[in-house]
Amino acid sequence: MPADRVFRIHARCPRTRARAGVLNLPRGPVETPVFMPVGTLGTVKALTAGELEALGAGLILANAYHLHVRPGSEVIERLGGLHRFMAWHRPILTDSGGYQVFSLRNRARVTEDGVTINDPCTGELAELSPEGVIEIEERLGSDIMMPLDQPVPYGTGAARTAEATARSDRWAARACVERERRGLTPPDRLLLGIQQGGFSEELRLDSARRVGELPFDGYAVGGLSFGEPPEVMRRLSRLSGDALPDDRPRYLMGVGLPLDIVRAVADGMDMFDCVLPTRLARHGVAFVADVPVQLRHSRWREENAPLDPACACEACALYPAAYLAHLVRAKEILGCRLLSLHNVHYYLRLMERIRSAIAAGTFGAFAEDIELRTAGAGDSSEPEEGVSGWSPRTVD
Amino acid sequence: MPADRVFRIHARCPRTRARAGVLNLPRGPVETPVFMPVGTLGTVKALTAGELEALGAGLILANAYHLHVRPGSEVIERLGGLHRFMAWHRPILTDSGGYQVFSLRNRARVTEDGVTINDPCTGELAELSPEGVIEIEERLGSDIMMPLDQPVPYGTGAARTAEATARSDRWAARACVERERRGLTPPDRLLLGIQQGGFSEELRLDSARRVGELPFDGYAVGGLSFGEPPEVMRRLSRLSGDALPDDRPRYLMGVGLPLDIVRAVADGMDMFDCVLPTRLARHGVAFVADVPVQLRHSRWREENAPLDPACACEACALYPAAYLAHLVRAKEILGCRLLSLHNVHYYLRLMERIRSAIAAGTFGAFAEDIELRTAGAGDSSEPEEGVSGWSPRTVD
Repeated sequence: MPADRVFRIHARCPRTRARAGVLNLPRGPVETPVFMPVGTLGTVKALTAGELEALGAGLILANAYHLHVRPGSEVIERLGGLHRFMAWHRPILTDSGGYQVFSLRNRARVTEDGVTINDPCTGELAELSPEGVIEIEERLGSDIMMPLDQPVPYGTGAARTAEATARSDRWAARACVERERRGLTPPDRLLLGIQQGGFSEELRLDSARRVGELPFDGYAVGGLSFGEPPEVMRRLSRLSGDALPDDRPRYLMGVGLPLDIVRAVADGMDMFDCVLPTRLARHGVAFVADVPVQLRHSRWREENAPLDPACACEACALYPAAYLAHLVRAKEILGCRLLSLHNVHYYLRLMERIRSAIAAGTFGAFAEDIELRTAGAGDSSEPEEGVSGWSPRTVD
Repeated sequence: MPADRVFRIHARCPRTRARAGVLNLPRGPVETPVFMPVGTLGTVKALTAGELEALGAGLILANAYHLHVRPGSEVIERLGGLHRFMAWHRPILTDSGGYQVFSLRNRARVTEDGVTINDPCTGELAELSPEGVIEIEERLGSDIMMPLDQPVPYGTGAARTAEATARSDRWAARACVERERRGLTPPDRLLLGIQQGGFSEELRLDSARRVGELPFDGYAVGGLSFGEPPEVMRRLSRLSGDALPDDRPRYLMGVGLPLDIVRAVADGMDMFDCVLPTRLARHGVAFVADVPVQLRHSRWREENAPLDPACACEACALYPAAYLAHLVRAKEILGCRLLSLHNVHYYLRLMERIRSAIAAGTFGAFAEDIELRTAGAGDSSEPEEGVSGWSPRTVD
């Protein structure tokens, strides 16, 4: 089945570049714009696969590199693949380890052939090549594979950025060859290309053109949300979206806060992943009316009402907000469990609201409304004061 | 309703002192022998009240002292009581804080009036008196209240043990007066007496006699599992059981491993609580065929079968054991969540097996079988080798 039969766009916003569609995958349809909860090590932190299914998640993200190191991609293959291992039966997208080439860059050595990472958890050397990553993703049973790439930190010089981008583009071509050789074809297996280009508009456009010419089933914008100012991220993601093929899904990797997602949808992005809903939960932060609030704040101490009276998640349906606040203060595991559930529920409902607004032709007004309401809660790149321990760019 | 209508014994073992019965409480019947999962701070660690209900827990334990300090017994009262706060609708037994008089003894000052504890979490002084504890337990909405007592560590001298025991007995009498004054009567509110006496047989018998003469609805054996050798615990618990009224429930506080519970049931004990199922889970230890096993052990690394193929809990029904082992090694929250669920399920099923055996007249053989099978797994006071971080007597 060609990719254009896998991805169908069924509505477009008349005022923005937003579009609503569906990815028809054998393990289940994925309605876009979609948010993927992050399950780096084969678990969306603190939640079960059954809970994610009940929350309506259609697609989750796991990390090929991390699972290759622990418990081992061969181990998972022998046990019947990642879906069976973690009891999640809907589609999985696997990130390649390109992010770890950045986040573990002090422990990584990059050559034209690939990258060697001295893993901080096991102390062992893991070798990743463009071909090897496809093999790992095949073993895991990934539904949507990402190729190995080499993003660069914000502030990297022009020459090094150009070199890493050209290498990422060459690696992308090698990944395409390898997936063909292995017969990993749609709709069972999608492979998305990743545009790089650092923080240079020219390199971003070059990379979009080169990657866009390769036979990928969709295209990701990589290397953003890597420490750059929010306006830089937005300018580059908009420019990148415009430069990538319109008829394939576009994935803005690692983004972000609710307003970041709404803005990127307006720029034509279809797929998102971010650790924030579960990481913020572990720091006592929950989303209420599209804004992150800190449960340690004294206003919640004796709050008899639910955290969000409009929310239908278990944490809001069963408990007074004061109970959640107590669990957070007492550092009880149930606290991060219930807040993780609430925050993932919130993100999935946000995407539903976005899709409905696009289908109804009202997305422009929806985006303006959320911009107005949440801009007052601070810059979109920083949750409200009191969000202690909030750190968007460390490893999940 | 007098207490003998609340507690009914319906079967007795012909070979041991074991008996099976039921505590008829307004919030639901509690079949005995019963194991109470420990929810010190209003949460059985890592589990929801809904999960405990689905597992068939009939009675859980919370700690009046800890909840009085955090979030405050007045706060919980204003929010409608502990049951509503934590969304648990079956009975709750509240421990008094007597255990903390022991475990926080370096921060506690005891007088005839009561005890002042410098709380290690808040840094504030909490004052507990026999009357004040009853008031706190009334505020929380406790179904089964425990009075303030003063247990002593193993190795305490005879004079100090006698003094603490006599004081505990006087405090017990004051608790009875206070519960009368407040009209906290069965079946809505039970109050159990606590026998003390340290590690002296004579003092244990004295205390059992004095506490046994007070109008309690049941009797607990306190101050055991406090660092003494297992044979000392068993001798004293057997002697104490014999000395306490036969027609009321008997509660062996803080015990224990499966074999400890089976032995104590044989000695006539009806109620148990212990942090082990959830604490061991947090250290990667699960009960399989009545024996604790360490999931970090290499034997689980590629185990495709469930942890316990005979177990119906979610952790065993949905996942290969290798997934649980991976979560434990990766220190994922879901790992301690699923092992906590499994271990609490195991303890509750153990009690069901015990009750069925008593009802069928086969408890003697049941106890012999479990003694034979698990004695090979090491002394009952110590789980098998490799149970890292196992420490039975620290605060939950």
